[in-house]
Amino acid sequence: MLKDFARANKPEKDEIKLHMAEEQAKLATNQMRIKEAKVPVMVIFEGWGSAGKGSVLSRVIKEMDPRFFQVATMDAKPTEDEARHPFLWRYMVEIPEEGHFKFFDTCWMEEVTSVRARGELDDDAYNKRIDSINMCERQLVDNGYLVMKFFFHIGQKEQRRRLDALKADKNTSWRVDDDDYWENDHYDICLNVNDEYLRDTNRSSAPWYIIDARDRTWATLQVLEFINRGIDVAIHNRGIAAPLRQNVFPLKKTIPLARIPLDKTITDDEYHTQLKALHQRLDELHNVIYRMRIPVVICYEGWDAAGKGGNIKRITSALDPRGYIVHPIASPEPHEKARHYLWRFWNRLPKSGHIAIFDRTWYGRVMVERLEGFCSENDWQRAYNEINEFEKELVDSGVVVIKFWVQIDSETQLARFTDRQNTPEKQWKITEEDWRNREKWDQYEQAVDEMLRKTNTTFAPWHVLESVDKRYARIKALRIVTEALEKACNR
Amino acid sequence: MLKDFARANKPEKDEIKLHMAEEQAKLATNQMRIKEAKVPVMVIFEGWGSAGKGSVLSRVIKEMDPRFFQVATMDAKPTEDEARHPFLWRYMVEIPEEGHFKFFDTCWMEEVTSVRARGELDDDAYNKRIDSINMCERQLVDNGYLVMKFFFHIGQKEQRRRLDALKADKNTSWRVDDDDYWENDHYDICLNVNDEYLRDTNRSSAPWYIIDARDRTWATLQVLEFINRGIDVAIHNRGIAAPLRQNVFPLKKTIPLARIPLDKTITDDEYHTQLKALHQRLDELHNVIYRMRIPVVICYEGWDAAGKGGNIKRITSALDPRGYIVHPIASPEPHEKARHYLWRFWNRLPKSGHIAIFDRTWYGRVMVERLEGFCSENDWQRAYNEINEFEKELVDSGVVVIKFWVQIDSETQLARFTDRQNTPEKQWKITEEDWRNREKWDQYEQAVDEMLRKTNTTFAPWHVLESVDKRYARIKALRIVTEALEKACNR
Repeated sequence: MLKDFARANKPEKDEIKLHMAEEQAKLATNQMRIKEAKVPVMVIFEGWGSAGKGSVLSRVIKEMDPRFFQVATMDAKPTEDEARHPFLWRYMVEIPEEGHFKFFDTCWMEEVTSVRARGELDDDAYNKRIDSINMCERQLVDNGYLVMKFFFHIGQKEQRRRLDALKADKNTSWRVDDDDYWENDHYDICLNVNDEYLRDTNRSSAPWYIIDARDRTWATLQVLEFINRGIDVAIHNRGIAAPLRQNVFPLKKTIPLARIPLDKTITDDEYHTQLKALHQRLDELHNVIYRMRIPVVICYEGWDAAGKGGNIKRITSALDPRGYIVHPIASPEPHEKARHYLWRFWNRLPKSGHIAIFDRTWYGRVMVERLEGFCSENDWQRAYNEINEFEKELVDSGVVVIKFWVQIDSETQLARFTDRQNTPEKQWKITEEDWRNREKWDQYEQAVDEMLRKTNTTFAPWHVLESVDKRYARIKALRIVTEALEKACNR
Repeated sequence: MLKDFARANKPEKDEIKLHMAEEQAKLATNQMRIKEAKVPVMVIFEGWGSAGKGSVLSRVIKEMDPRFFQVATMDAKPTEDEARHPFLWRYMVEIPEEGHFKFFDTCWMEEVTSVRARGELDDDAYNKRIDSINMCERQLVDNGYLVMKFFFHIGQKEQRRRLDALKADKNTSWRVDDDDYWENDHYDICLNVNDEYLRDTNRSSAPWYIIDARDRTWATLQVLEFINRGIDVAIHNRGIAAPLRQNVFPLKKTIPLARIPLDKTITDDEYHTQLKALHQRLDELHNVIYRMRIPVVICYEGWDAAGKGGNIKRITSALDPRGYIVHPIASPEPHEKARHYLWRFWNRLPKSGHIAIFDRTWYGRVMVERLEGFCSENDWQRAYNEINEFEKELVDSGVVVIKFWVQIDSETQLARFTDRQNTPEKQWKITEEDWRNREKWDQYEQAVDEMLRKTNTTFAPWHVLESVDKRYARIKALRIVTEALEKACNR
């Protein structure tokens, strides 16, 4: 794309000036339309060093209300803490909320191409990154984001001239570093790498715009025009249904909930013997995963009163409290609801060596949000695949993902609800909402069966915990967790 | 305190075991009482290296519900990013929400004493830290937090024995580093430093508990007993009014709003000439503060329709968008309301070299929250001093704090409201609430006068922007900002 990029003829100065004022004013109006339409807008600036991304950005936002946009300045190299998370993490935590703009001064492209150009990213790793990025950009767009990507293009000589000029001025010399000169010295290699990247990620959901950046004023005008046109299209398309994608991940067979036998029990003696042994083993493994820096995500879903809390407790009581965190997931808060529905989970991912336990998870999308109408049918239909992609992303980056469905039957739930209602110190655990949800047992069961079927991937399969005998379920959970950690430690 | 610490007699093993089960069960119950009473609990573990903080912590939480507590593991040394914020910042962003426990595995003590013992913190700097910490702990307690501080004490020989044992085992040798041995080699120096710190921060709002940590089981029991007793007291005292403290900060005189002349204007020519010159100067200064790593906080308060938005716009349009952020402050979200009211502002503090502009601020506490009854009288009465303390903390850590009150009269507001109502593209700016607030003009004026009077400190004074002529107000704001930055650059 870059190599065969045909420069347009630069307009006359007067013409640029005239259009500039128009487009800046239009962007100010569009900003309010975006606010009104609640569209989140992500504008990504990538390109050659010293191509003028910063100064163009200053001009682009000139007429914008600074309360409704933000700028994220990303380093090509992640910090140590960032590197202990999945590749996309440091970008995903930065995505804008609805009605707001976020400008990224370099984004995931730069992180990939800077190492690729140096030969530090082989084809497999590179292709994996491309897949992640394409998946991520598509998910954002499918979930209502406008993603606009600009590549600022200048030639080798022009870049050299600019670098030397910056370096010569003592007020700007700090802005030039060895990496900039390295890029200039290896311009052809970088050109190939950039060109390849642009081609690989030029999808219709978020196409590339190559900006002829020889002249900063003109570059600004080009960017403004593209953004304004992009906004028009985005607002026009607001609320359309995104295509449902076929599941491309390998799935394991599931058994419908109704056919799962729930008569499994464990004797007192066996429970205590096994609990002790498994706790000891888990304690040791926690040390190993800490030292080997393996991140772990444990997901709990299940019926109200199925025994999730007590089950989690039996996992955590073997763990060093400095190395895990339990995230109770309730309905999203306003700032969470205003972003991609997976954002609040990206935000809670553990760093390597740590364990995050989710008491309820992103599967709320295809259960409560589906049944209560908190999202559209298209949203939850799409979510199965999006969730598989999300979990694949985690697994590929080295996260051990363990998913539990804690299963009881309707009569057991009723007995436990009644017990909670009648026991003063348990009353906080039962609410009107629990009773209301109970009335929808059949709908939930259907939704859960579909969820288990569609997200039971080989890389992040569901484990059903038969929890009529809670102690049986605890031992089973402990066994699954220890086995998964053992496997991860021996990889 | 540490040097004359008299060890109690260790109880018999059986007795410890008996009480342990009792106290753990009691803590589980207390956790639910805390949840019910919505008290946030901060438990701080400090002490000698290898004194067993981690293993005691594991036992303390044994019966607790892991969904309602978290552990924050703090390094003695802040990361580069953390070091670019005020000293207290990395702790304040971690404070628990109401009904939850947060255990700190070392906290601000360790950061202070570890450098103090090495002679890298002189008396002045040390005393400043102590003042900050005492202020912070008191503010937390006054705002309903239970803060419990434990120091784990062992002798020099015992510490040596433990370090050697850890080091000898290949599974634990990674837990011992040079700093641990340094501490042991300089035990007496560290003893003095720790002793001094404990004395200096042993306030009745958050007293110290020294734990004889020779035996881990007994240490656990001591901690459990103190926490349970602390919770009883905290729940008993729930909702009491904290003492109002005298303002100890130097104040500048203020003029009541009603007596501020609002007839100031500026000619067209003068406006454009000055705007250009000030923008140019601000652009240069932004570069300098970025390079000198000076953090800047600019606060905007003022009447609805006074022209805050446009004023902010004239500041930001001269700035590099990668170096500033505008925070529009609305009513707090649930997770913000559940913490110290300054938490959401701590969370938004800029790192050094960056500018944060607040469109409305923490002063909401003594305006809207006061007048609408969102906090108690004791809360807002106390807030003047708390806010002065907060701003002092910022200023002392090198932040340039600039506070604007944007002033108009009631007639001007009415004219602007009417204009907004009648102009389609401005209608989003005006709501029913604005009209309701307008009816309370006199009450607000009284509250603002009191606020200006009580928080007009010499180190963070208020600047009134006469904004009937918005352009006059913009030029004045720009002048104040450039002058403040110039001063900071020449410090």
